[in-house]
Amino acid sequence: MANITNQDIEDLSVGAALLGTGGGGDPYIGKLMARAALETHGPVELLSLDQVPDGMNVIACGAMGAPTILIEKMPSGEEIGVALRAYESRMGRKVDAIIPFEAGGINSMVPIMLAAEFRLPVIDADGMGRAFPQLEMETFNVYGVPACPLALADEQGNTVIIETDNAAKAEFLARGVTIRMGGQSYLVNYGMDGATTRRVSVPATMSLSIGIGRTMREAAEARADALEALINFFQTTHYEIARVIASGKIIDVSRRERNGWSVGVVTIEPFDNPGKPVTIQIQNENLIAEQDGMVLAIVPDLICILELDTSMPITTERLRYGQRVNVLGVKVPPIMRTPEALAVFGPSAFGLDRDYAPLEA
Amino acid sequence: MANITNQDIEDLSVGAALLGTGGGGDPYIGKLMARAALETHGPVELLSLDQVPDGMNVIACGAMGAPTILIEKMPSGEEIGVALRAYESRMGRKVDAIIPFEAGGINSMVPIMLAAEFRLPVIDADGMGRAFPQLEMETFNVYGVPACPLALADEQGNTVIIETDNAAKAEFLARGVTIRMGGQSYLVNYGMDGATTRRVSVPATMSLSIGIGRTMREAAEARADALEALINFFQTTHYEIARVIASGKIIDVSRRERNGWSVGVVTIEPFDNPGKPVTIQIQNENLIAEQDGMVLAIVPDLICILELDTSMPITTERLRYGQRVNVLGVKVPPIMRTPEALAVFGPSAFGLDRDYAPLEA
Repeated sequence: MANITNQDIEDLSVGAALLGTGGGGDPYIGKLMARAALETHGPVELLSLDQVPDGMNVIACGAMGAPTILIEKMPSGEEIGVALRAYESRMGRKVDAIIPFEAGGINSMVPIMLAAEFRLPVIDADGMGRAFPQLEMETFNVYGVPACPLALADEQGNTVIIETDNAAKAEFLARGVTIRMGGQSYLVNYGMDGATTRRVSVPATMSLSIGIGRTMREAAEARADALEALINFFQTTHYEIARVIASGKIIDVSRRERNGWSVGVVTIEPFDNPGKPVTIQIQNENLIAEQDGMVLAIVPDLICILELDTSMPITTERLRYGQRVNVLGVKVPPIMRTPEALAVFGPSAFGLDRDYAPLEA
Repeated sequence: MANITNQDIEDLSVGAALLGTGGGGDPYIGKLMARAALETHGPVELLSLDQVPDGMNVIACGAMGAPTILIEKMPSGEEIGVALRAYESRMGRKVDAIIPFEAGGINSMVPIMLAAEFRLPVIDADGMGRAFPQLEMETFNVYGVPACPLALADEQGNTVIIETDNAAKAEFLARGVTIRMGGQSYLVNYGMDGATTRRVSVPATMSLSIGIGRTMREAAEARADALEALINFFQTTHYEIARVIASGKIIDVSRRERNGWSVGVVTIEPFDNPGKPVTIQIQNENLIAEQDGMVLAIVPDLICILELDTSMPITTERLRYGQRVNVLGVKVPPIMRTPEALAVFGPSAFGLDRDYAPLEA
């Protein structure tokens, strides 16, 4: 149990962008907001999953919407607190701790902002182990936690509470509301007790993100190879395996806002094989990397597009023609690869006509 | 104060279809549902506005959605009760009486169903004095009652509670939810006390609807002219003036579902002047009737399309090429014609580039 430092926030913003696999929202905006929240309200404790007591009253939180909209529609910083107050009022009780519903981009920062405001700890874990585009794509849902009540708020202080016993329906309704809130909302849901939280969460993903950022920062300071350092770092974690699945130049980015998501395809011309482009399909996050009909990596394994020179992750909305990139594939922990988990956030959940193939296979 | 009889329900279904001015949902489905509710739960009292005590805890209710969808997506009959329970749970108190939020189509029946189930009276008044397509188009809103909290439910038992201090925003968010609930939802909102209810409601619109239906039934039984009887009946009410503004054959119906509404234009070839068609613009309800660049009638005054032979009202979704019709214009009461009221549901509120012109002018 330790307080989250400003340096942690800095490192987290890099690691969360990487775990975001393109999605999860701009980490720069999140970083500024989290820093401001710590300055205003004081320090926030990061609580490891094994320190969570059975009876702790835990709530998940994050932002919903298309990342492309987030950079045009700045949050006020008060949205998520408004959502939590609406939730607490609905439940008639206070929550004790905050858990990120996803470990990516802005959604690693929103829980810190909320925890700072409410003087609560943040749990070092999450429900996705990465970023996913839909609210039902949560280990919380996979392992039986109801998605509702769900409370949403927007920057005008409008709130909506959704109650349905189906997580995909909750996603569908919340997405509809989010679109009408201007494409971006802030929400709390998946209320659960501490014992459940320990059972259903992807552990240590906040410290993993911080570790990723720290590793890259230290490599840069030492003028060492950040990519090599990153791959070595993953070997020391429960994600274990990271490897470069493509290197090349972006020769096409097709991307648009559809149904409240950023969807598209990025095409990379490999340096070593220009005639065989690598394509990556996107729904907020990078879903599948293919080359010449072969799957290089596929959800839920991570597909991270990194700047060639710095190895800094590039989010979906910042992909551009001409960028030179490495594509890193990363294995996800066992809790995300069970048949139940793959049914909820494996290839078929995204309508991909491909079987799941583990990165290391 | 009297109980609503089965005969009243029958008459109300005709009158509500007429006040619905094309919208408000199919009165036949509503009639069946209201009858079933009375059979299951027992009688419902109709309480005149001047009998409403100051401290009475009143809630408005009705269905939201495109009428064209209602006839394909039958309600279970339990939706509105689910919505009220969610509302009462949010407010932490019970309601004492139900008021229709609109006096049209199914929305004259939904309050009776709800009142039967909860053993509460229905107030003989409403917030539109007719049907309008949007939730902020309420005298309740015009005269200062907050539209929220607003509770919505669908036929699967899913509920959503919306809180915003702007009635148009409440409409926008609720419409988004309704679309994702399959195009039809049931909602309660505009909670207010009895003194407020007396001040902000259009009086006696339930008994007006019942009177319209009774007048037409009795005319049919006496083989008298139903249209003449109807016009005479209106003269005895606070709506005062009804007159035929066109008679002819429908030669075109253009109608589609857009943004959760049924929108379109119906074109009528007048018997007495075939070269000068009458057009009626529709957004769920009939908004404006024009001929040769002249306005024959315009919102909020009523534009009712009636079968030529029977004078039975034809709802938007049942308009067909070849129907022979009378178009009846009806004056609305003063509470609906103030500058504040016209700002909320006059021509400009529908984007019509026409000034309001009273029917009788």
